[in-house]
Amino acid sequence: MNLQTYLTGRKEMIDRALAKFIPPASAYPAEIHRAMRYSLFPGGKRFRPILVIASAEAVGGKARQVLPAACAIELIHTYSLIHDDLPAVDNDDYRRGKPSAHRKCGEAIAILTGDALLTLSFALITRNTQRNGVSDSTVIHIIREMADAIGSSGMIGGQVVDIRRKKKYTRKEIEYIHAHKTGDLIKAAVRTGAILAGANPAKLRNLTEYGKNIGLAFQIVDDAHDVDEEKNAPNYAARFGKKASLEKMQDLVRKAIMKLTPFGEKGDMLKQIAEGIALRFPS
Amino acid sequence: MNLQTYLTGRKEMIDRALAKFIPPASAYPAEIHRAMRYSLFPGGKRFRPILVIASAEAVGGKARQVLPAACAIELIHTYSLIHDDLPAVDNDDYRRGKPSAHRKCGEAIAILTGDALLTLSFALITRNTQRNGVSDSTVIHIIREMADAIGSSGMIGGQVVDIRRKKKYTRKEIEYIHAHKTGDLIKAAVRTGAILAGANPAKLRNLTEYGKNIGLAFQIVDDAHDVDEEKNAPNYAARFGKKASLEKMQDLVRKAIMKLTPFGEKGDMLKQIAEGIALRFPS
Repeated sequence: MNLQTYLTGRKEMIDRALAKFIPPASAYPAEIHRAMRYSLFPGGKRFRPILVIASAEAVGGKARQVLPAACAIELIHTYSLIHDDLPAVDNDDYRRGKPSAHRKCGEAIAILTGDALLTLSFALITRNTQRNGVSDSTVIHIIREMADAIGSSGMIGGQVVDIRRKKKYTRKEIEYIHAHKTGDLIKAAVRTGAILAGANPAKLRNLTEYGKNIGLAFQIVDDAHDVDEEKNAPNYAARFGKKASLEKMQDLVRKAIMKLTPFGEKGDMLKQIAEGIALRFPS
Repeated sequence: MNLQTYLTGRKEMIDRALAKFIPPASAYPAEIHRAMRYSLFPGGKRFRPILVIASAEAVGGKARQVLPAACAIELIHTYSLIHDDLPAVDNDDYRRGKPSAHRKCGEAIAILTGDALLTLSFALITRNTQRNGVSDSTVIHIIREMADAIGSSGMIGGQVVDIRRKKKYTRKEIEYIHAHKTGDLIKAAVRTGAILAGANPAKLRNLTEYGKNIGLAFQIVDDAHDVDEEKNAPNYAARFGKKASLEKMQDLVRKAIMKLTPFGEKGDMLKQIAEGIALRFPS
């Protein structure tokens, strides 16, 4: 299947599921439920939930089976964007081409909306995966992994180092930010899909490496787009140059794709997704 | 046992467990792990985790068995205080007799610390309750209940209505705030202890009613202490008078205690805790 066709179809599936899983905008108190929907729709590329699905499919699972977990990961991603955009953190007025949550709904509601999405993500994982033949112990496993991946030594830890506002970040700090701020959730997305679809340990190891490599590649591409934005940002391209960034990114994508060999044709979409990341590198 | 002796003993048990369950202050990145400990220690009365334990004991369970869940509830409570104190929300500079998290660590770290505590609370429930003979499906049940109790139609919903900053709140709004902003977590604490200790449906129903009633009573007492603090706050005593508050609170405590009849002597601590709430009403 063509990558664009695949991405469009999966995105639609995720958008429908999200609309179903989150409370209606009219639910009391309406201001927060409106804000939750405002932040979620229309969404971005739904890259992370699509990875959950593609990873499950690579080990013979079905999209339907992992939709609640995929949506949970999109809620987590959205919560992290809302809190990152806050005036006290990155102070971004725009997100996905419209006013960021705090610009639209006020800072207090934005903080609480992020909190609510994070909370709902855990409810979502417990509520829906059991129906699809996933064991209770697997559900618990997923919740634990997710909480670790997005906690103070994971995604939040990466954000903490990112906002140090240093004149010059060390290479170690930049790598820590990349591995954790964006990398951990991307890796968790790939692992979640694989675990829910019953991947064996060898395949799970390969997909974990795949997730780690594309997570880093994804962030390097993002950095290359933002290179002029802020001088003191811990930006890979700004720090190590565009040429070194491109080479590093290509190496990561190559490594990611090599890990897909055991999956044969079933790994094709993950391969195309990795190639798609490389194609986004600005010329 | 004397109430004070009981509370002191249980508080020490909880403090020790918390110190063990959360990452060391030196864990990388240190600024957030220091902030997590700063907000957690020294804590308040540990009222909510003590309720988890006392509720488990009322149905024949052991404190040790429910400690991880009790600590998870204290993390949730602490996260909610940190976010409530933020300049954009209640703008409180002091908490538990020292500078609030954002005054001490800065706003960005305070936001992320709240996020990290909320996230860790879910990890804690999955990580520790299985060892104590609690089934996986019960762990999932607890996680789901907790996420609902503290979500956009629970604790966060109550906070959303609380910050409407209206000239005059309706009775319905004030009751909604009480039931959800403080009540839902207190009720969840009581239910969590009971469910983990294997309460039968009849006893769980009684303890749920107990939790609901003391949650409301607790907030009415708090409001009676804060009555002069802010004119536009949705304060029960300010709105309905101190006499009506006292009567309502006494009625709630009476109802709570009545629900303990089937527990006999085992319910004595919960009874004393309810009486202790009534004694805190300012004269």
